[in-house]
Amino acid sequence: MLKCRACDRTYKDDCSLWRCNCGGYLTYFRERPLEISRESIRSGPLSMWRYRSVIPVGPEVISMGEGVTPLVKADIGTGEVLLKLDYLCPTGSYKDRGISVLTTKLRENGVTSLIEDSSGNAGASMASYCARGGLNCRIFVPHYTSAGKCVQIESAGAELVKVPGTREDTSAAALEGARSTFYGSHNWSPWFVEGVKTFAYEIWEQMGWSVPDNLVVPLGQGSLVLGAYRAFSELLEAGLIDHMPKLHGVQAENCAPIVRAYERGLGSPVSIDKIETVAEGISSSQPLRGEEVLEAIRGSKGSAVAVDENSIVEGLFRLSSCGVYVEPTSAVVVPGVSKLIESGAISEGETTAVFLSGSGLKATDKILELRRKTK
Amino acid sequence: MLKCRACDRTYKDDCSLWRCNCGGYLTYFRERPLEISRESIRSGPLSMWRYRSVIPVGPEVISMGEGVTPLVKADIGTGEVLLKLDYLCPTGSYKDRGISVLTTKLRENGVTSLIEDSSGNAGASMASYCARGGLNCRIFVPHYTSAGKCVQIESAGAELVKVPGTREDTSAAALEGARSTFYGSHNWSPWFVEGVKTFAYEIWEQMGWSVPDNLVVPLGQGSLVLGAYRAFSELLEAGLIDHMPKLHGVQAENCAPIVRAYERGLGSPVSIDKIETVAEGISSSQPLRGEEVLEAIRGSKGSAVAVDENSIVEGLFRLSSCGVYVEPTSAVVVPGVSKLIESGAISEGETTAVFLSGSGLKATDKILELRRKTK
Repeated sequence: MLKCRACDRTYKDDCSLWRCNCGGYLTYFRERPLEISRESIRSGPLSMWRYRSVIPVGPEVISMGEGVTPLVKADIGTGEVLLKLDYLCPTGSYKDRGISVLTTKLRENGVTSLIEDSSGNAGASMASYCARGGLNCRIFVPHYTSAGKCVQIESAGAELVKVPGTREDTSAAALEGARSTFYGSHNWSPWFVEGVKTFAYEIWEQMGWSVPDNLVVPLGQGSLVLGAYRAFSELLEAGLIDHMPKLHGVQAENCAPIVRAYERGLGSPVSIDKIETVAEGISSSQPLRGEEVLEAIRGSKGSAVAVDENSIVEGLFRLSSCGVYVEPTSAVVVPGVSKLIESGAISEGETTAVFLSGSGLKATDKILELRRKTK
Repeated sequence: MLKCRACDRTYKDDCSLWRCNCGGYLTYFRERPLEISRESIRSGPLSMWRYRSVIPVGPEVISMGEGVTPLVKADIGTGEVLLKLDYLCPTGSYKDRGISVLTTKLRENGVTSLIEDSSGNAGASMASYCARGGLNCRIFVPHYTSAGKCVQIESAGAELVKVPGTREDTSAAALEGARSTFYGSHNWSPWFVEGVKTFAYEIWEQMGWSVPDNLVVPLGQGSLVLGAYRAFSELLEAGLIDHMPKLHGVQAENCAPIVRAYERGLGSPVSIDKIETVAEGISSSQPLRGEEVLEAIRGSKGSAVAVDENSIVEGLFRLSSCGVYVEPTSAVVVPGVSKLIESGAISEGETTAVFLSGSGLKATDKILELRRKTK
């Protein structure tokens, strides 16, 4: 069942709307209890589809074997943590988990063409999964998007539309395009989070069917917080874990609408003036599901912290000096963990898993520039 | 036990030589029978270390969770094949499997500093695993190596040495450096293939504990052929599979010393004048273990074929149009499969697995250039 948060109206799972008729966004709610069995997981495929009993789609999935990414111990300068290397999904970011489910569900529902807007990981992922699944897609990107990102999208056969103006102008152009084509936006879709959540199931399996005390994730639109909250809630409900990990989201100081709300005890993201940040993947000034994200963070007894630009760059180099090569956005978690320890949000002796979202191989030019600047 | 192919001299596993005193290369031979159990594999970690009973190293491994890469069905223009997306290893290439084992074994044997020479995937992998394992490393690269590759190596904290002249001059400089530091070369090491072989175990598991009729791999130095031959031989010996897949190696026409030898029925790679190829990762004019590679190909009833530059580029775009984004080197397998079908080396109705070695995200500039040229 899909439900609108704004007006409570419900729709069937096979409805072909990308949002409620009132304009609100839709969220998926399961109507039957889950069936989760460790044995069926262990004997399942070596991909996120080993958790298919918790993914609400039919048998014909659009998959490139996404998931089962490494969880490895490392000292990132804050004592030992567990790094979830989720940038090792097929197109170089965790978005593949969500896009796999989203494209699968849309195809089930009869969608054959769609539009997405993104300047980065989601665009590459959407273009690739549409290619894999035989869907037509048009990706709207800001005119200044790097050639490297454009070539990955175009190589997959997607139609690339470069939009003059700001990132917001790109979204507006995509919405305009959505009048005639299905708007497949991962942020609006109720299905995206149903794929993203599988990373949390994996952490549970990889930790020997247990969960960490803390989970620290980069926070932009908040799909990682929402995915983890959903997965851990399902595991709690099924009696398979005994506590909800504290979910901590990390934003860049230059774009921290959720952190500002968290600090002030507010229920909705704060309106901010966005400043450019090296963590471009989480530079979302108006997160669509911000209220829910704040509820999940508070509901898990977690927190939200913001980190400055220098500390992000230092975090990036700290990770690469451990052999872990991520894009700058992912590196917010390194100073994030430090801040969370300082503030007491993470206590000594607790276990902490840290999520790394995007590959450094996507950001070669930027990493080169940052290395030159800091020399 | 390590054994020299040239003079048959043997050494213990903990010997600290990188080659035989006679100058020949060393190969590892197991002295005890293997213990392979499907149940212990299934309950093992979600990485290549689920096959640790067949990897000859001790308990303290240098790992970033490499392995368990996707195996997915796709039509690459030649009917349905199984694509092994092994570029989804931690640093973006399958080399991580071998380098994980190699660095682990060298550290066990007391090595603390090493030298490698590479202009590409092996250098990035070695730098990253040395960083992870606390080993010092110096990577020799040709002076013309792209900034992007250099930044990945330097970010991991490796010392980068740019050598004037040709690729062969770089190898000579590394050998010269090896007088004072351990030469960790993955091509010379007897341990590299013991890691690489795990991809073939994975295919066996992913196909429901069975193996394909054919395996098609890019062929440069030949570690993929040797790794697969070793793994499948071990599985045959253990009675866990009933046939050896035909192993087919694909080279670029511009650098095909093994194909030329295969065609002429010779036992050693043919001396050739190398021409530049877009498949730079397999541009090896004098493969060190070439004789063994030819033995493995013939022993498996496989073959070796060469493909031209245009067909490699077409193969690259064919893969990307399926959502599979690899570096040009990997794309040789696409025209390779076509040729193998034409020649009858692959018959109708047979199952074929195809190996993809390196990430397209490492080759953004080159892919951009190829797209511009072909427009």
